[in-house]
Amino acid sequence: MTRTIGVALLGLGNVGGGVVKLLEDNAAAIAARLGATLEIRAIAVRDVLKADRVVAVDRGLLTSDVEATVQRPDVEIVCELIGGTTLARSATLAAIAAGKHVVTANKALLAIHGAEVFSAAERAGVDVYYEAAVCGGVPVIRVLREGLASDRVEALHGIVNGTSNYILTTMAQTRRAFADILRDAQALGYAEADPTLDIGGGDAAHKLAILVNLCFGTIVDVAAIPTDGIDIVEPIDLEYARQWGYVIKPLVIARAHGDPATGPIEARVHPALIPASWLLADVGGAKNALYVESYALGPSLYYGAGAGMLPTAMSVVSDMIEIGRNIFARVAGAPRPTRPRPAQPRALVALGDIRTRYYLRFGVHDKPGVLGQLMTILGAHRISIAQVVQDGRAEGSEPVWVVVLTHEALERDVRAALTEIDLLEVVRQPARLIRIAGAAGGAR
Amino acid sequence: MTRTIGVALLGLGNVGGGVVKLLEDNAAAIAARLGATLEIRAIAVRDVLKADRVVAVDRGLLTSDVEATVQRPDVEIVCELIGGTTLARSATLAAIAAGKHVVTANKALLAIHGAEVFSAAERAGVDVYYEAAVCGGVPVIRVLREGLASDRVEALHGIVNGTSNYILTTMAQTRRAFADILRDAQALGYAEADPTLDIGGGDAAHKLAILVNLCFGTIVDVAAIPTDGIDIVEPIDLEYARQWGYVIKPLVIARAHGDPATGPIEARVHPALIPASWLLADVGGAKNALYVESYALGPSLYYGAGAGMLPTAMSVVSDMIEIGRNIFARVAGAPRPTRPRPAQPRALVALGDIRTRYYLRFGVHDKPGVLGQLMTILGAHRISIAQVVQDGRAEGSEPVWVVVLTHEALERDVRAALTEIDLLEVVRQPARLIRIAGAAGGAR
Repeated sequence: MTRTIGVALLGLGNVGGGVVKLLEDNAAAIAARLGATLEIRAIAVRDVLKADRVVAVDRGLLTSDVEATVQRPDVEIVCELIGGTTLARSATLAAIAAGKHVVTANKALLAIHGAEVFSAAERAGVDVYYEAAVCGGVPVIRVLREGLASDRVEALHGIVNGTSNYILTTMAQTRRAFADILRDAQALGYAEADPTLDIGGGDAAHKLAILVNLCFGTIVDVAAIPTDGIDIVEPIDLEYARQWGYVIKPLVIARAHGDPATGPIEARVHPALIPASWLLADVGGAKNALYVESYALGPSLYYGAGAGMLPTAMSVVSDMIEIGRNIFARVAGAPRPTRPRPAQPRALVALGDIRTRYYLRFGVHDKPGVLGQLMTILGAHRISIAQVVQDGRAEGSEPVWVVVLTHEALERDVRAALTEIDLLEVVRQPARLIRIAGAAGGAR
Repeated sequence: MTRTIGVALLGLGNVGGGVVKLLEDNAAAIAARLGATLEIRAIAVRDVLKADRVVAVDRGLLTSDVEATVQRPDVEIVCELIGGTTLARSATLAAIAAGKHVVTANKALLAIHGAEVFSAAERAGVDVYYEAAVCGGVPVIRVLREGLASDRVEALHGIVNGTSNYILTTMAQTRRAFADILRDAQALGYAEADPTLDIGGGDAAHKLAILVNLCFGTIVDVAAIPTDGIDIVEPIDLEYARQWGYVIKPLVIARAHGDPATGPIEARVHPALIPASWLLADVGGAKNALYVESYALGPSLYYGAGAGMLPTAMSVVSDMIEIGRNIFARVAGAPRPTRPRPAQPRALVALGDIRTRYYLRFGVHDKPGVLGQLMTILGAHRISIAQVVQDGRAEGSEPVWVVVLTHEALERDVRAALTEIDLLEVVRQPARLIRIAGAAGGAR
């Protein structure tokens, strides 16, 4: 119990504060499980003199010198909690070069510079752990890497962005407009001042890239993942969805096609209609969940807090404990055969080649024959209709809505049909398209 | 890729067959992740000549000599898939004594003889892994041991027996009687010929003992865990529960009281009413799930197949992969600080001292004043009533039901009240008691 592992934190925001607090609050349990103490030796911050910190820390630990911090000889584990991909990248690479093991919660860094970071770590013989990067406190990385080590993942459906889920959940409950709810969420601290990465789907795409790497052993270009934000959803869409037994959730979806080891990967980020009977439909508020379909286990689901000070810190500190165990076992930095090597480049399925079902909402003039025109064009593009509803005429209200649920169709065909329809004289505004998550995947 | 780890299977039933199949079906993925091949060198079975096996195996692998099998010099990992606590115990101890690492799916063995098995393993310097013993293919052991290593579990609610869940789910859907559904489940192979361990709660109690050991670092006497089977539930109870917004699920519940490291542990196994809004309420059929409340992460849930050939085999083979990694890292058998040592004996909360809410159903003569008698006795025993319903008189049908939902009360008081009530002249049959899972725990 006298052994001590020196830790440096880069960043003392919400997650960094959580790490400081958790190391104190659970000190006894952590020491019992690791057989050692994790001791913070330095915390690099932008402004050493900043007044109100998330937690109280010894001023003597604070420094603004990141470079010197990652070099400290009394530090074995560096926690990168800066965020972003600039300073975070250089600091992480510097820590690795200095022979330090790294724990990071930074999904953007790993999604964009993961290959660079992991190959640097391999050369330097250090560990890089990142449980907190996806689904916050829910240990999905360990589940996929170790729990399902003997299995083959076939498909993933996940809710991995808490802010988006909070906004859509609140919209469904209150029927208030997107912008309103976002403003409140920002005031409450549930959404960033610049919410683009969350509501635009970029954050979810980063996480999906990490999941795809783990599950399918390939590195995908994040920029190539088809990504729609939740701002395409209006309260009326949630209402139509509800009437047909669906809810709309901010999903990440991935699926392997063809040969399990080399076939192309379908990966996409967008709000989707899912049947209200799915477990994922009950994942509300800012909670996250990952629904995995794998060959041997079949469906499984992992649910919990995807963000927040203590939940995220919990994953970070659990990673530190595992690195500590590796250090004592003298295997820290040893090549991990369970980390899939991106030796096999696999193609991404192009958006146009995706087959799924669609929710389409058209705003049209209320004139006889409009429905016929729409149906004719959809039919000409091989789009088969499952259900259609046309709004009763509300005196003088324009446009009126025609809402369609399709059978499975090719995205390319749907896009071509919508382009044609949007040019019709009777159409008042561009068609709204929301994908429906497949019959495969997600059922209880 | 030329390295090979020799494996012996003890038992070739459903799970053993699944292991053989999975090692074949996922051979490439497993080899890629482990950097080695897992090769079955021997399979010990009761009857070498038995005709129809679950899977086809090379006859030359089969032997009836367990003792010789666990001694084989070309075997490094022994998988105990015999079940029970007699031959399984002696074979496991023999394997450990012979210096073999052990993977087991045997919850009874670990719940009853875990201390003996783990201390023998420690002395011999070998690993014992048991992911499949709780929740089958859902990696809850890894989640609790590693994913939540930095956290403190406060409470657990779990559905860990698939047969019981299947029967109660089917009863709720069809309103058929318990015995009917059980007979069908046996015919379909969802229930054992002798279903006592499943429906009586014994199997769930074994799993709960393992979970309590992992989460709270103490060994509990399985026989001391208060355990009710699901046979106390009748279709009418599911109907009353439904009307009040509840479902009835076969639960295991554990909670730490007082000091997190030394306080007493509440542990119990019984069917329970849970609000229909809980995620656990949606865990249907034979599926399992564990709902964990921990200090830093808050609520989290892990869901999937709790039994079945391939799901269970998946956990067994993932354990083999981890042992293989340990072997290559030369840390196999090294003491694991993350395995909580049962150094701290912790008291079990006595059943009489449990505080919870209750569903009570009384079968009474339909006479004026009966309700008053019941309420008076409950009140005298400090039991406060939340809701009560008295069946309208159905001509000539006796007994009529009085159903009560209580506020939180002490089990001892409730038992005393029921004893008194059951002696009343107007009472036609003993009161039915089903506990309601607490307001704390399980909410979405």
